[in-house]
Amino acid sequence: VLRSLGPREVTITGGLWADYQELNATAIIDHCFTWMERIGWIGNFDTIAAGGGTHVGIEFTDSEVFKLLEGMAWELARRPDAALASRYEDLVGRVAAAQDADGYLNTAFGHVGQRERFSDLEWGHELYCAGHLLQAGVARLRTGHDDLLVTVARRVADQLYAEFGPDGRVAVCGHPEVEVGLAEFSRATGEQRYLELARLFVERRGRGLLKPIAFGQDYFQDDIPVRDAEVLRGHAVRALYLAAGALDVAVDTGDAALAATIARQWDATLARRTYITGGLGSRHTGEAIGADWELPPDRSYSETCAGIASVMLNWRLLLESGDARYADVIERTLLNNILASPRADGHAFFYANPLQQRVANGEAPDDEVSLRADSTLRAPWFEVSCCPPNVARTLASAAMYFATADPYGVQLHQYGEYRVDTSIDGGDVALSVSGGYPFDGVVTVRVETAPESGARLSLRIPAWARGRATWAVSGARTATDGGGVLVVDGARVGDEVVLTLPMEPCVSVPDSRIDAVRGQVAVERGPLVLALESVDLPGGLGAGDVAIDAAAPLVATERGAKASLVATGDHAVGWPYGEEADGEPAPLGEVDLIPYYQWANRGPSTMRVFIPRA
Amino acid sequence: VLRSLGPREVTITGGLWADYQELNATAIIDHCFTWMERIGWIGNFDTIAAGGGTHVGIEFTDSEVFKLLEGMAWELARRPDAALASRYEDLVGRVAAAQDADGYLNTAFGHVGQRERFSDLEWGHELYCAGHLLQAGVARLRTGHDDLLVTVARRVADQLYAEFGPDGRVAVCGHPEVEVGLAEFSRATGEQRYLELARLFVERRGRGLLKPIAFGQDYFQDDIPVRDAEVLRGHAVRALYLAAGALDVAVDTGDAALAATIARQWDATLARRTYITGGLGSRHTGEAIGADWELPPDRSYSETCAGIASVMLNWRLLLESGDARYADVIERTLLNNILASPRADGHAFFYANPLQQRVANGEAPDDEVSLRADSTLRAPWFEVSCCPPNVARTLASAAMYFATADPYGVQLHQYGEYRVDTSIDGGDVALSVSGGYPFDGVVTVRVETAPESGARLSLRIPAWARGRATWAVSGARTATDGGGVLVVDGARVGDEVVLTLPMEPCVSVPDSRIDAVRGQVAVERGPLVLALESVDLPGGLGAGDVAIDAAAPLVATERGAKASLVATGDHAVGWPYGEEADGEPAPLGEVDLIPYYQWANRGPSTMRVFIPRA
Repeated sequence: VLRSLGPREVTITGGLWADYQELNATAIIDHCFTWMERIGWIGNFDTIAAGGGTHVGIEFTDSEVFKLLEGMAWELARRPDAALASRYEDLVGRVAAAQDADGYLNTAFGHVGQRERFSDLEWGHELYCAGHLLQAGVARLRTGHDDLLVTVARRVADQLYAEFGPDGRVAVCGHPEVEVGLAEFSRATGEQRYLELARLFVERRGRGLLKPIAFGQDYFQDDIPVRDAEVLRGHAVRALYLAAGALDVAVDTGDAALAATIARQWDATLARRTYITGGLGSRHTGEAIGADWELPPDRSYSETCAGIASVMLNWRLLLESGDARYADVIERTLLNNILASPRADGHAFFYANPLQQRVANGEAPDDEVSLRADSTLRAPWFEVSCCPPNVARTLASAAMYFATADPYGVQLHQYGEYRVDTSIDGGDVALSVSGGYPFDGVVTVRVETAPESGARLSLRIPAWARGRATWAVSGARTATDGGGVLVVDGARVGDEVVLTLPMEPCVSVPDSRIDAVRGQVAVERGPLVLALESVDLPGGLGAGDVAIDAAAPLVATERGAKASLVATGDHAVGWPYGEEADGEPAPLGEVDLIPYYQWANRGPSTMRVFIPRA
Repeated sequence: VLRSLGPREVTITGGLWADYQELNATAIIDHCFTWMERIGWIGNFDTIAAGGGTHVGIEFTDSEVFKLLEGMAWELARRPDAALASRYEDLVGRVAAAQDADGYLNTAFGHVGQRERFSDLEWGHELYCAGHLLQAGVARLRTGHDDLLVTVARRVADQLYAEFGPDGRVAVCGHPEVEVGLAEFSRATGEQRYLELARLFVERRGRGLLKPIAFGQDYFQDDIPVRDAEVLRGHAVRALYLAAGALDVAVDTGDAALAATIARQWDATLARRTYITGGLGSRHTGEAIGADWELPPDRSYSETCAGIASVMLNWRLLLESGDARYADVIERTLLNNILASPRADGHAFFYANPLQQRVANGEAPDDEVSLRADSTLRAPWFEVSCCPPNVARTLASAAMYFATADPYGVQLHQYGEYRVDTSIDGGDVALSVSGGYPFDGVVTVRVETAPESGARLSLRIPAWARGRATWAVSGARTATDGGGVLVVDGARVGDEVVLTLPMEPCVSVPDSRIDAVRGQVAVERGPLVLALESVDLPGGLGAGDVAIDAAAPLVATERGAKASLVATGDHAVGWPYGEEADGEPAPLGEVDLIPYYQWANRGPSTMRVFIPRA
């Protein structure tokens, strides 16, 4: 229904997102490259190129290099940089040199002293790695380059088609990703065989092709055929990458039933298995989406990569349906899950994004690979380091989630400071969007170019603002509320639309079936979920020692809010079950709540998003 | 302070515990033997004896065989049985035949094609296995047999002393257990070197001797020296076995400071990290005790073995201090955690014991080894099958937790139907204890034999009954409430003490810092924690669809209670955070709550111990 825009059609020009893209350009991309070079993950390609077979790191380190290549490709389109281009080309050359004669490319399998190719589909991640390579190739094609990386990717895809295609082995990978990679690559190259292979992988899953594992077959979604499932389950990243790939297949093969199934599964997941931050994955064990209503804030896994995968899926649902509520999810997840991952300096990352931190952990050492996803504040690098390069590619390409086009006009899904320069049926359209969003609620859209016949502008009215948003349109134009979307027809050069969104902090009450946060509330301010961090509490109190007076007014601050808290006082000591025995609460006055994504940038702290009601 | 009684000094004669000991004798012990024979875990010993080196199952399968031997030893003392004795001796012979010339005994290391002995102390579990062998030897010695198993155990202990003793390698095992095994074995044999080695293992831990692992060093308590820790943490079974061993070392070396440290650590653990069932371990990841107040009911791991280890620790604390509150914990844990493990027919077991079941899982197949601890109702056997034989040895020796003696008299810690036949300074004492406990609150103690000078009887008044218990003593004797213990001095033959405990169901409110059950209450009846199981709900409702009218009276039933519940009604569908939006609650009338330990014996169901307040 909607057409996605290329990296030159949407450009972020300022504000929060420009700051994060700058952080990515100046710190995160280089951080990822430096770590992967330092610990030998890039060197793995040199080893294979030299005829060796020693592999450093876990089986799927190649995928991190490919995600970084994708991020670099988007970044090169966003802002040309000769040094980055040179680094990119050098890295592509090293990757290409490791490709086998028949197109197979993986540094952990199939070479001297290594296990056979595709001998461990449950855990080997070879197809998963290939999927990320294909996505890197797509980034290159979509930014106008049909270069060596694309050639490498074509040969990989052709080898996979021979191995697993209609005449090949009936198998799937333990970690979905190749489905979405193949479908995207098919779209970018026009090669239908890649789509066909993606379709086969989607259809084969859920039929017991993978061996039983201790996590259970739902871990890799091999428990139920994709078409028969009712909700996303198992390993969150796996479930979401698979759903994104299945939806791509559905759209590109015209399979409306499959598309509807994926949408239903997502709706059920969103309603019963998603955190208020947009985070997904409520279990550390198996990094899994839990059962309905199993959403513990303290053990929220909400892996950064799962948030990214959710944005990928919701983006596809938005394009397929035009329904702005998927853009609501993208906004929530980008701002409250993904942006929480990088530290303010871009040199350390959260892997898991809990909504409650009970113990004030210290930062991980700057120079060590972290074995654990949850023992520290952010860490510079991990044994399984999927999140940092995933953040890099997402930030570099973030602008593309902001707007779409159709024959009649342009749809603005996200706000901030950016430009749109595209074409519709009537001619070129250029828009500038400005304002201090997400901290300020006034969004101004100016039409700089438009066809003589005018263009239709559609502005998402976020779900959290429904019924409270106001707007003004210059000139004779009128705006209508088209069910969560503000529509201005016939916009012409010089027109201006001002959408004003309510930024007063509000209390959000969780559904009472979410047992783990019963009797607690969150505070949201516009699109931002706020958090209480202990560094903002007086007298050495921790986030576990307070409650909120939910009846007292909340006061907006520049980026967060002030809330009236009470200290919950002394409790009985000893066996903790029996008579009600709390101490006398003591008012603490107004205490700062900050945007959740900013937490843990001021040293060790305890933190909570949901605060008990006094 | 108190002397533990041998298996011939306390005999269970009827009631709930006799039923479970009968189940153990007729089903559980044989079930464990049959499974371990069938899948080759016993055969591993034959393989080694024959000079081979193929090992079936995970590294520490030997420990399960040793726990079964311990259970059989206790069972043979409880009720002589020629067939069981013959089976026991045959099994001991097979184990003994696998012992190396220098005393080393382990079927997974050190033989043809296997890894070197003690080459993987983090995960190899060799010392852990040895600890269980030593405990089996202790069971044999304490039941009056200095047999081949004891000889095998001595040789194992001697080999360990040579390898790891004062002149040996400075190392510890990744899984504590050898400490408690060595200390017990030292006490049973009088050999001080074994105690010295136990002491060394305790002192060495917490000093970084084990390599870093992804779970973190707290997983195997190698993060902090035992003396410096403030609370139990990490893998629950490891933490509790270590604490039990450390306390044994403290008592037998006269180290009051170490004993006080362990008691403090346990008190902190009990107050902030223990479930109402006595269960320990709030994380599936790392099978770990969580942070303070991290006690999610649905993801409660509460491993059966952790409950057993907690009983071991609390028993030692009771003997060391004489403080009846440790007997309170033993009662709570035996009845509400450990007894929940075996299915009513004794052929399937819970490994994890959650306090809330969100999804109605089916039973595991009767003939398959379960890969998972949490995907089904009880399972017949597991890849890691520590719990079933641990249940077997605990049930076979349960009577020993019921009473102790000191020079002046006998202390009755647990109730039910049993006899005590022992001696104190003045002469022999024989007591019979009767009543329908834990379902009925009238406990009758009759003195059948007593010294001329009389005996002091001490009866624990359970913490849950304090202030509500009543008692009557025959004749001229008087009873005094000695701070949670009813004391009758100078009891003589024919005397009778009747202790009446209040069995009305009561609501228990969790400490408000336990976020996961805020706004919910549990119902207890005497020592039993009750549960709501969906099979007792009308109209297909699940345990997640109801709330309790906590103000309405609770009505006792034969073994549980009836509570007034309401259906919580329809909820909003969609994004689950925002305005308060629950439906109209509908009264359901009185619904049965059953003892928690009995749940999941009536087919798939959802279940909860903590019920939201209406």
